[in-house]
This record gives sequence, C-alpha cells and structure tokens, in this order.
Amino acid sequence: MRHSLKEIAAALGAETLGDATLVVDGLAEPGAAGPDDLAMALTPKFADSLAGGRARAAVVWPGANLGALGLEGAIVAPGGRLTLAGVTAMMDHDPAFAGLSGCHPTAVIDPTAEVPADALIGPFVVIGPGVVIGPGARIGAHVSIGPETRIGAGATLHAGVRIAARVRIGARIIAQPGVVIGGDGFSFTTAGPSNVDRAMRQRGDAPLPPPEDGAWHRIHSLGGVEIGDDVGIGANSTVDAGTIRATRIGNGVKIDNLVQVGHNVVLGDDCLLCAQAAIAGSSVLGPRVILGGKAGVADNLSVGRDVVAGGGAVILADVGDGRFVSGHPARPTRDHRAELRALRRLARGD
Amino acid sequence: MRHSLKEIAAALGAETLGDATLVVDGLAEPGAAGPDDLAMALTPKFADSLAGGRARAAVVWPGANLGALGLEGAIVAPGGRLTLAGVTAMMDHDPAFAGLSGCHPTAVIDPTAEVPADALIGPFVVIGPGVVIGPGARIGAHVSIGPETRIGAGATLHAGVRIAARVRIGARIIAQPGVVIGGDGFSFTTAGPSNVDRAMRQRGDAPLPPPEDGAWHRIHSLGGVEIGDDVGIGANSTVDAGTIRATRIGNGVKIDNLVQVGHNVVLGDDCLLCAQAAIAGSSVLGPRVILGGKAGVADNLSVGRDVVAGGGAVILADVGDGRFVSGHPARPTRDHRAELRALRRLARGD
Amino acid sequence: MRHSLKEIAAALGAETLGDATLVVDGLAEPGAAGPDDLAMALTPKFADSLAGGRARAAVVWPGANLGALGLEGAIVAPGGRLTLAGVTAMMDHDPAFAGLSGCHPTAVIDPTAEVPADALIGPFVVIGPGVVIGPGARIGAHVSIGPETRIGAGATLHAGVRIAARVRIGARIIAQPGVVIGGDGFSFTTAGPSNVDRAMRQRGDAPLPPPEDGAWHRIHSLGGVEIGDDVGIGANSTVDAGTIRATRIGNGVKIDNLVQVGHNVVLGDDCLLCAQAAIAGSSVLGPRVILGGKAGVADNLSVGRDVVAGGGAVILADVGDGRFVSGHPARPTRDHRAELRALRRLARGD
Repeated sequence: MRHSLKEIAAALGAETLGDATLVVDGLAEPGAAGPDDLAMALTPKFADSLAGGRARAAVVWPGANLGALGLEGAIVAPGGRLTLAGVTAMMDHDPAFAGLSGCHPTAVIDPTAEVPADALIGPFVVIGPGVVIGPGARIGAHVSIGPETRIGAGATLHAGVRIAARVRIGARIIAQPGVVIGGDGFSFTTAGPSNVDRAMRQRGDAPLPPPEDGAWHRIHSLGGVEIGDDVGIGANSTVDAGTIRATRIGNGVKIDNLVQVGHNVVLGDDCLLCAQAAIAGSSVLGPRVILGGKAGVADNLSVGRDVVAGGGAVILADVGDGRFVSGHPARPTRDHRAELRALRRLARGD
Repeated sequence: MRHSLKEIAAALGAETLGDATLVVDGLAEPGAAGPDDLAMALTPKFADSLAGGRARAAVVWPGANLGALGLEGAIVAPGGRLTLAGVTAMMDHDPAFAGLSGCHPTAVIDPTAEVPADALIGPFVVIGPGVVIGPGARIGAHVSIGPETRIGAGATLHAGVRIAARVRIGARIIAQPGVVIGGDGFSFTTAGPSNVDRAMRQRGDAPLPPPEDGAWHRIHSLGGVEIGDDVGIGANSTVDAGTIRATRIGNGVKIDNLVQVGHNVVLGDDCLLCAQAAIAGSSVLGPRVILGGKAGVADNLSVGRDVVAGGGAVILADVGDGRFVSGHPARPTRDHRAELRALRRLARGD
Repeated sequence: MRHSLKEIAAALGAETLGDATLVVDGLAEPGAAGPDDLAMALTPKFADSLAGGRARAAVVWPGANLGALGLEGAIVAPGGRLTLAGVTAMMDHDPAFAGLSGCHPTAVIDPTAEVPADALIGPFVVIGPGVVIGPGARIGAHVSIGPETRIGAGATLHAGVRIAARVRIGARIIAQPGVVIGGDGFSFTTAGPSNVDRAMRQRGDAPLPPPEDGAWHRIHSLGGVEIGDDVGIGANSTVDAGTIRATRIGNGVKIDNLVQVGHNVVLGDDCLLCAQAAIAGSSVLGPRVILGGKAGVADNLSVGRDVVAGGGAVILADVGDGRFVSGHPARPTRDHRAELRALRRLARGD
C-alpha cells in the first residue's frame, strides 16, 4: 500500500517531522530499508543502522533528530507496539485474496445456504445446507463449512479451514489455514473403571492387572461450538465440539498455531493462548487468561480471570483470579523459582 | 433425532418413569433444557437445576422422584457415562454428511479404484489408482487418498483428511478433519556421527566443535501404515509411514487431536492417546496404554500393556506392564509425587 | 522399483557377495522378507532371523557368511544408516504422484502465474497471481499457493499443503501433507501494559487486578517467509510469516510433524527440529541446532551453532555454541541430570 507520511501519521494520531508528503510503499528494518520504504525505528537503538542505511523515511522515537539520521521525513511514534499495530495495518495490502472477486465458479454451495452478494468465495469451497454467511466474509480456497453453521460479518477464513456442523461464529473472525472448528470431542468411556480410574485409585506402584473389558465407547458430540466476535485462530489449531452444550470462546480471544481447545471448554473474553497450548475437556477460563507456549490445563478445572501461565506450565488444579503460575504441575511462579534455585543449590552441594 | 423415552430406554436397557411416550428431539443440560429436550441429569447434584428449569423429560439417577423434579417422564440411568454414550449416539443426527448422496460429480476417482455403490463421496475428493474403499464408507469434502491404499467398511473420513499411498485401514475408522496418515517418517542420517551422538558421547559440558559434515541424508519411508478396526483419530493428528515395514495401530485405538505417531511405531489394541501426545520412531506400546495430554514416548522404547502415563509425562526408558508413571523423565507416579513434596519442603526450608 | 544387487551395490559404492544378478523389488525386515525382497540386515543381530526366513538376498554387515545365512546374494553395507538412506532411496517407487501427468484439468491457475511444462500439478490445486513455480515441481491434490509466492526447482508439495502469499522457497523442498507456510504471526499488543508485563513486574504473588483495557490489537504480518534449498517439513507443521522482514529457514533444515516456527525466527543451515518442537517469535538459531521432540525456544533468544536440546527441553535464555541442554528451564544436561539425581536422593531420605 502506498501512503504519504501525512496519511499514516493522521491515522495513528502522530506527528510528522520534515517532508510529510513523502510517499512510502513498504515497511523495513532500519538497516534494510530502501528509498521507498518506511523504516521502523521505534527506539534510539536503531539510530546507527538508520543513519547508515538508505531510508529516506522512518517511524522514529520521540526526540529523534531528522538530520542526524539522514532522513527526509519521519513520523514520531506515539506508543511502541501499538504504533507497530497501526502502521502494519495501514501498509498491509492483504494479498491473500488478490485476484478473487465474488464467488468462484468452482465453489459448491448448497442451495439452502445464505451467502451474501459481497462475499469473496474462493475456488473449491464447499458450503453445506442451511449455512448462513455474514456480509463481507472472505473464504479462501478449499474451505469446507458444515451444515447449519453460521459465520458472522467480516469473517476471514484462510485456505483449507474446516468448520464442522453446529458451529456459531461471531463477526470478524480470522482463521489461519488448516484450522479445524467443531470436530468431535475426545470423549470415550469404558464399561467398568478405566485404567486411569484404576491407576489413580491404587496409588501404590504394584502393576495393574489387565481389565476385564478395555473397549472404549464413544460419547457423541452434539453441542457444537460458539465463538464470539473478533477472534483469531492460528494455523492448524483445533477447537472441539461440546457434548450436549457448545464449547464456547469469548469475544476477542486470540489463539496461536497448533493449539487444542477441548470439548465443553469455556474461554472468557480476550484470552490469549500461545502456540501448542492445550485445554482439556470441560475446563473454564475467565477473561484475559494468558497461556504461554506449550502450557496446558487439565480437564474439568476452573481458571480465574487474568491468570498468566508461563510457557510449558501445566495446570492440574483450580487457579484463582489474577495468579501468575509456572511449572509442571503449575504453582505460583515465585514458589516455582524458589524450588528451582533450591534444587540447583542441592545438586551443587551448597 | 426424535425419539420417545420408551425407544431410548429400550436401546439402553433402562427403565422409564411417568409418561414413556413423550418425544424428545435434543439433549440439554438440566438448567438449559427446553420442553422438547431430554435433560441429562445423571446425578442428584442436578436436582435443583432440573426442578427450576423447563425440562419435561430427563435421564435421571436411580431413586429420583419424578414429581419433585417437575418432570412428566424420565429414563433411569443404568450406568453413568456409558448411559451418556448410548443417549448421545441415539440423539446424534450426524449432520456432517447431510445433503450428500452417492458420489459427488466433482470427485476425481481413478478408474482403477474400487468405490462401492453405497459410499458417500463428497465434493472435490481425490482417490488415486488402485485404491479400494469398503462398503458404507463416508468420505468428506477435499479428502485425498493416495495410490494402492485400502480403507475398510463403514469408514468415516471427515473433510480434508489426507491418506497417503501404502496405507491399510480396517473397518469403521473415524478420522476427524485434517488427519494425515502415511506421511514420510522423520528419518535422516549424517555421514559421520550426528550432533546428538557427539553430545551424548561427550557428556561433559565443553561445547561441541562444528562437525565436518552436517548435512542430513533422507531415509525414505517405504513401509506405509496399517490400522486396525474401530480406530478414532482426532483433528490434525499425524501418523507417519514406516521405513521398511508398516507403522501399526491396533484395533480400538483412540487418538485425540494434534497427536504425533512416528514411523515404525506399534500401538496395541485399545490404546488411548490424549491431545498433543507423541510417540517417537520405532517405539512399541502394549494394549490399553493411556498417554495423558502432552505426554511423550522417546524412540525405540518398549511400553508394556495397561501402562498409564500422566499428562505431560515423558517416557525416556522402557516401562513394564501395568505401571502408572508421571513426570519428565517419567518415573513411578508415587515417586514423582514424593519428589515434588520433598522439593517444596526444601524450598520452604522445612 | 526392481533392481539387481549389482545395480544397488554400484549406487552405494558397496561390494556384493554371491549372485549379483539377483533382482529384488522391495525391502523387508530379515524375518519377514520374501524371495523377491531385499532383507535389511545391517548388523549381526539379524543373523538368526535371516537364516530362518525366506530371503534370498540381503544387505548384510561386513564379514557376514552368505551360505550360513541361507542367501543367494548379498550387498555388504559400507556404513549403517547411510546405507539405509541409499537403499531406501533406490527402492522407493515414490507412489504419491502415481497416475498424474502434467497439469490436472481441474487445477485453477491464475493466468499471471508461471508454471513450467514439466511440473506435475494435481487435482484441485489453486495457484494465485504472480506465482512462479520452478522446473520439475510436483504439487499434490488440494495444495494452495498464495499470490506472488516463488517455489524453486524440484519441489514436492504433498496433498493439502498451504503456502500463503509473500513466500520464497528454494530448490527441492519436500513438504508433507497439511504443512502451512506463511500464516500470520501471532503478534498482538494491548494499549497499556499486558497481563504478562504486569505479572512479570509484580513478581510477588498478590493477584493481578483486572486491567483497564484487555483488548488485543493485531500487528499485521508483512514480511513473508524465505526458505533455502533442500528443506523438509513434516505433516501439519506451521511456519509463520515475519512482521516487517521474512521468517528465514536455512538450507538443509529438516522439520518433523506438528512443529511451530514463529514469526521472524531465523534457522541456520541443517537445523533439525523433532516432532512438536516450537520456536517462539524472533528467536535466532545457528546452524545445525537440534531440538528434540517437544522442545521449545522462548521468544527473542539467540541459540548458537551446534546446540543440542533434549526432548522436552524449554530454552528460556540464550545458549552458546555447541552446548547440550536439557530440562525446563533448559540448563546444561550434566547439571540437569545431577539435579534429578539429587532430588531422587532427597525424596528417598538418603
């Protein structure tokens, strides 16, 4: 996207220095920026690479000296990463759907589905009976949407997203390629006590004898999934259907790649789940919970609002509001660190 | 699905209370159930929400009082979650394939493939040369099946499942969207000792110098995959092909989402692998092994029958029959817990 | 593939014993090999199963006695797994693309894309505007390639691979089914300090109060992905686009299944990432780093050349060249093992 510094600054509520009519058509790191790029130099640590490079325009820190940096124009960053959010949004020419217009003739859309005239529907998309798609939706190649599912306005479903039947999604979802929403929950039962029940009960370490009947009986997933507005879901992540009520994801939730959200889970608004995190069946997370990469929550737990779980933390018991936990099993981060230090001293013989 | 209480009770081998001719067309939690739902109230803890709700019919615990609960009819649950399995199976109208009949005209089926007349084949399915599909199979949109693969009777392959060449699958598999079966094993070798070999051998902590030749040479995967009957595989899970013999998955095995099964692995009957579990190349698991979420098994190990590994356990050595292990490295759960307690006391200075 | 022992030995630079004109058409384990198979018996531990089986031909260890093993011909293995690499490569009839020739008529290829005449393009492939595909590429069913992406010579993209816009890939990549390259990075910011910032700063364990504004603002991913030559990527793995410069993967890198490579990451040549490993945003790994299964690297870190991280290791701080680390948090493996031993002794009361 081509914009003048003036246009970008206006959108950010920022000020300009020097020639505000300069037009840029891309973003770059300070040292790699060419004459048509806007160099991103949000802190003074970039001063040398900016001065030594070919950039004519940059986003700079408050107090930066245009001349010393060899720039012809600049935007003064009002606020760190929020500036980065604003600038990247403006400069994104959003190429994923380039070349598409309207509904591709190869798409297979059930006659009972409602697809608005302004939707972009890519090649080989399959939309089942009774589906309702909101206005402005963009649906990439090879996406499949199961019967009776509803998807809100402004949705972006990238190539190969799989949405099963019985799913309700709010406005403006962005689903990266390979996301699966509404697959069956992993819910099975044995006729007698399962090996997990037996192992837990026994506690000691005498080995379990074989059970009388080890067969697993499937509990079907009838509850579907309900997802709020402004949700993002990363590549190849999976959200399972609930058993007799929906798995629920609140507004504003952001989910990274390869994350698992189990059946019946409830995620409060604005939760953030980093890559390879997982939440087992029926656990409930309050709003704004953050799970670091590879963190996990066992089944049937309650995790309060504003909990932060460090990378790799495995939550095995309920966690109260606002707690910061780490380790496996997860415990207060302060305690976890104290234990790591104590163990190190022990091993060294201190 | 619409069923009378009498029909459902007959299928479960259960008794009814009150008006057994009542017809229900969905399942619901006790407090959320409407007048046409069957409320699931398997224990007395649901008494209040049932009595306060609008349900006319419910599955109740033995001894429940119809009148006190405000119900017109009920089914007395013979056995907890097994009841849930039976009721959810009956009430599932199984919408994933709604609107499909026979073979969709867009499917690309090699003329040498055998596809039975009663199979459901969705839009844009690709079936390669020499493939044999069993009777009653249901194959969702965008599934691809590689050359010479065989899939047994009653298979359900949901949208976007990828099955490579050289795969043999038994009857009644259910594969969720995005499953990949038969991709290449992760098998590479270096000309000299690899960095892993060198690091293991050295043991000390002097840093490794660069190797003479760090290039990885691919070992091709010729062995394919063999899967038994009644297997379930969760969304975006992966099962790799064996090297010179098949990777093998026994009958009744259930695999959750985002699970990795490496090349040459052998899984005994009725194993259960929870989300994000992984088994590295050439390890052998006996029947009925349960791996909790995020659990792992290193390569070339033997894990006995009826072993239970807790969530996040990482098995780095052989495990005998019937053992319950936890932690990383996995050890007897009793020992692991004792170590966690000892560490906590140490850090507190007790 | 059918080859004589002589042909195979010539390709490997190996010697033959007995009848070198014997023709084999498959590989097998020594005990399972039939009369047309080449049994793989690289060490003397296979002597009994070879002698007791039906194999007429085998790859054997130096010094093996043809007559005592009941063989008519043999190839003497010059070097362990490198031999396995060579033999499996020769015997692989590479069935994935069997039955395909040229460009399948169902493929949707933008008129501005450059697709060479010798490429194999499978059914329902979608290739966007401005894409350039190198000679000899093989692209499986249902692959989608976004606008302006370039893919080098001899690429193999298996079924259902998703490559977004702004991606540059070198020669001879092999991408297993379900790989996603170039999805959006997981990059969000809050207007004020995030809960992670607040939890880190506080250190104590008083619970966090709710923030004033918990909404996440998206930082767009404009940088794409650059991948070198001879890279392999496993099923359902994901590589995210960079923010303002490309995420970079060096030559010869091998990535297993279900691995996450975050935005802005740089991987040096010949790195090897085992299943379910993950690297968070902006971390830089030197050449030949090996991450064991389930290992992780936190964001914004530097990991030196030839580092080996054991299975499940979680790297939370920079690591110098050539180090061998284990545990969570990752530390020198020698220290980690000493800590495990000390803890075991502590719990036992030794």
